[in-house]
Amino acid sequence: MTDSQDAGRFRIGMAQINTTVGDFTGNRQKIITALKRARSSGVDLLAFPELATCGYPPEDLLFKPSFVTENLKSLEKIISDTSGISAIVGFVDKGDNGIYNAAAIIHDGKLASVYHKIHLPNYGVFDENRYFQSGKDCPVFVIAGVNVGVNVCEDIWIESGPARTQARSGAELIVNISASPYHFGKGDIREKMLTARATDNVAIVAFTNLVGGQDELVFDGGSLIVDETGKILARGKQFEEDLIIADLDVASVSPARSKAASTEEKGEIISLSEKSLHTGKSAITPHVARVQGFPEEVYSALVLGTRDYIRKNGFSEVLVGLSGGLDSSLVAAIGADALGKDNICGVAMPSPYSSPGSVTDAELLADNMGIKLLTVRIDKVFKEYLEMLSDSFAGKESDVTEENLQARIRGNILMALSNKFGWLVLTTGNKSEMATGYATLYGDMAGGFAVIKDIPKTMAYELAKYRNSLAEGEIIPESVITKPPSAELRPDQKDTDSLPAYDILDPILTAYVEEDKSIEEIIAAGNEESVVRQIARLVDLSEYKRRQAPPGIKITPRAFGRDRRLPITNRYNKD
Amino acid sequence: MTDSQDAGRFRIGMAQINTTVGDFTGNRQKIITALKRARSSGVDLLAFPELATCGYPPEDLLFKPSFVTENLKSLEKIISDTSGISAIVGFVDKGDNGIYNAAAIIHDGKLASVYHKIHLPNYGVFDENRYFQSGKDCPVFVIAGVNVGVNVCEDIWIESGPARTQARSGAELIVNISASPYHFGKGDIREKMLTARATDNVAIVAFTNLVGGQDELVFDGGSLIVDETGKILARGKQFEEDLIIADLDVASVSPARSKAASTEEKGEIISLSEKSLHTGKSAITPHVARVQGFPEEVYSALVLGTRDYIRKNGFSEVLVGLSGGLDSSLVAAIGADALGKDNICGVAMPSPYSSPGSVTDAELLADNMGIKLLTVRIDKVFKEYLEMLSDSFAGKESDVTEENLQARIRGNILMALSNKFGWLVLTTGNKSEMATGYATLYGDMAGGFAVIKDIPKTMAYELAKYRNSLAEGEIIPESVITKPPSAELRPDQKDTDSLPAYDILDPILTAYVEEDKSIEEIIAAGNEESVVRQIARLVDLSEYKRRQAPPGIKITPRAFGRDRRLPITNRYNKD
Repeated sequence: MTDSQDAGRFRIGMAQINTTVGDFTGNRQKIITALKRARSSGVDLLAFPELATCGYPPEDLLFKPSFVTENLKSLEKIISDTSGISAIVGFVDKGDNGIYNAAAIIHDGKLASVYHKIHLPNYGVFDENRYFQSGKDCPVFVIAGVNVGVNVCEDIWIESGPARTQARSGAELIVNISASPYHFGKGDIREKMLTARATDNVAIVAFTNLVGGQDELVFDGGSLIVDETGKILARGKQFEEDLIIADLDVASVSPARSKAASTEEKGEIISLSEKSLHTGKSAITPHVARVQGFPEEVYSALVLGTRDYIRKNGFSEVLVGLSGGLDSSLVAAIGADALGKDNICGVAMPSPYSSPGSVTDAELLADNMGIKLLTVRIDKVFKEYLEMLSDSFAGKESDVTEENLQARIRGNILMALSNKFGWLVLTTGNKSEMATGYATLYGDMAGGFAVIKDIPKTMAYELAKYRNSLAEGEIIPESVITKPPSAELRPDQKDTDSLPAYDILDPILTAYVEEDKSIEEIIAAGNEESVVRQIARLVDLSEYKRRQAPPGIKITPRAFGRDRRLPITNRYNKD
Repeated sequence: MTDSQDAGRFRIGMAQINTTVGDFTGNRQKIITALKRARSSGVDLLAFPELATCGYPPEDLLFKPSFVTENLKSLEKIISDTSGISAIVGFVDKGDNGIYNAAAIIHDGKLASVYHKIHLPNYGVFDENRYFQSGKDCPVFVIAGVNVGVNVCEDIWIESGPARTQARSGAELIVNISASPYHFGKGDIREKMLTARATDNVAIVAFTNLVGGQDELVFDGGSLIVDETGKILARGKQFEEDLIIADLDVASVSPARSKAASTEEKGEIISLSEKSLHTGKSAITPHVARVQGFPEEVYSALVLGTRDYIRKNGFSEVLVGLSGGLDSSLVAAIGADALGKDNICGVAMPSPYSSPGSVTDAELLADNMGIKLLTVRIDKVFKEYLEMLSDSFAGKESDVTEENLQARIRGNILMALSNKFGWLVLTTGNKSEMATGYATLYGDMAGGFAVIKDIPKTMAYELAKYRNSLAEGEIIPESVITKPPSAELRPDQKDTDSLPAYDILDPILTAYVEEDKSIEEIIAAGNEESVVRQIARLVDLSEYKRRQAPPGIKITPRAFGRDRRLPITNRYNKD
């Protein structure tokens, strides 16, 4: 490699880090560590995710002036650590009329400029209009001789947005810093969008994404560099931290793009440096991480989301009630994969209505996984409750009350173990149950984190089979997968006593909950009217239960939680 | 009264109705009933609250196309019922690029025009940017010869907003339709703002507010007419439905305002009718309802919010655990006032640690109020739990686990009674407890509605004394008010074992939770550092509990719930 070849090379780095909201010290340490590594690798420009100083989303912490101040102080410290490199760091900027979701453009120990996010998402899980002012300017920065447009997350999703303006102003490289949360299929949508943005604007697009779990969200990483022809030059790992380094042949961009450029709209051009601070570096082959397909990516999201929720909240061990059913078995497997098998404890809590198979299935699962199993029979306490309530219940038939009581005794046992030993309780309800209210408030819904609350039951089966396919032997016993689902709260109970079969139920739920289809439309799509009306009614009536459910990981395009904000008091369709 | 006097009179009506979200039929019936009453009273123009067709706030129901369609159909039916009168009705309008929070200007059976809300609130409890497009035009309508500017809720709060434009375009009367939620002190703020808007623009302002409870919000009514000199001409009742009718001397507005009018900005003028449809009507003296002060208005808000949550969700009876303490006694009083004393049942659940005074206080309260009281001792079940867990807990000391177990047994009893009899459980925790996490998840936090969750403990005392002051004899026993607060979950326990005295705690909580003050600022205001740090830490660490709490009524400027959106995973200030 000659010097002349070397001179045309621009080395970009993307630090796909796992930040924690409010952890200024920890986030800064990650940023500074990545800066050191990148500098020693001859990186010209290192990009970090959106709001890297304070983590994403900080939500109403942004209303605390002290929080914004601390974020600015943290940025100051980061700036002083950028000698010999350029960097783009997401932070909260403070202006006269409010705060901005911003990108600091830092060069060689100095803050060169600040970009303010222009397009603020205020849909789905996002509330950015609640906090931020919109930016107005989208200049182009000359960094190591390359024209670079910088923008933040949502900005790049807008076809006629900042990327276009920046390209028309001469940007050869568009650097987008994001905190783009995962949902099933999102990676594919994102890659198509980034490819369109790169080819439409004839510019290289470098997308740096956040990775990690934050409450109900998982950021999946998968940072990406797409060249002006749509070729993927680099892809970061999914669901893991990564430092992606690539050499960009920017010289080839300009000739190709001259015909696409227009003079219609031009932003400011701000020059930071005309040539690279590094010379004589040898070529680097960027890594293109493989794309995890379904169901692997969903399983990975659940593992990362669980691990980060537990650890970032200061816990190390969890416990899970093992009923011998599919959901609790799957949650136990995810928990063990997230935290290690020594950090999870199963609890079997048989009642008079538990089948012998349930107990042996729970034991077999614990054995297969090599996890601890406690067994606590609830019979006596249940009997004592019935005795205690016998006067109040005199003359009344046994009904769902007694079923819920058993579930609540189990909830109490798990919470008592949690209180006594400092273990966090993972709950085991799936999305089909959360949707229809087929769960007991303060019973099986009791716990700190609802791992699979956004996984429809039919998908839970696929995940269980996927997990088994990874192991040498069986992890989740075959009998758990094949037996008919049952809550086992009364003799011979089956889920299908109360609900349609899950392969009928789940598509109705998707249409009603995620796609806002009307009852009439769902019937017209070929579903039985009585079933559709029953399910819609159950979904609406169960809102009060969901409001008291623990958080869980968003997996579908619309999860219960801040993604779907329905009133409890709601007479729509109730006549 | 001569005909010439009569001709100068414009009769306005404001229908302060209690809508229910999604209840198109019920809301329409209320609207049509009010239209009939107003027409028979010779009203020229009748205003209804914001989004009167569908209730406020409909939240994500707005994403269902069928919901928007049904609201449009409902408006059509209302329009056909407006012969012989003009009306302004809040509804959801559908445009090419989205939906609008709109006001239909209806005249004599026809839709004359539509106004689109311009300023969309997206702070506090509001998320209107999530749903609505912003309107652009603010025309003036000639109705019965009077120039009327129409706008919606937030619009009137903006000094240089639509009201100014409309006044400058000649509006003599500004009709604002609102769904303005209550918080303590809001009425006063609102009246000052409306007075400023009227006098600044030299126009009569007629503000029609919603009344009623919707989940965590209470709309307090108190609709208002302020003339161009700032005089209050009419005020609707607070916390009740009302039909306010007033004759406006519009003739006196024009001369006064000519000097204030400017030609800078003028909107369109749309003529509906040049003279009143009614003649020969006799004068009406508008009612100026008295303003409830503190603590009356807070108590009224709690009663209305509780009644509407219970009834709009299809319940008629409630139950409440009576510990003999202040909070449960206050909640029982509110519940009885909301639903009638025959629709509330108290439950005393003494444990080995309950003082004899607690049981007798609960009995005395139930006696004073004339409500049913069940007594269910938890001793045996508690003992059986300890026995059941003895192997798992071997070698461990007794701690908060055993305290929580008692609270959870009580939660289970209340939920079992709820399940068996269809009664909704009112929980009794106050804001000081919710803030610090001094409550047991699935224990005393278990229930359907948390009546006083936004009432600081110090305010709870004032409300109890206020309620006693209304009764002939004592309602809440004096001993309940004077004894030191205790959870009674271990021998001789007092709240002050874990928390500072409430008169020290509550101001710290207000500063930290409602005012976003930093720890340093709260210390600087004269609070002890160790106490402030302890409290801030408890508030932050308890976010996970609050996330699983039942809804309750917003009373303070910032309630827990959608008003305050903090992450659970949050390391800010935790180092």
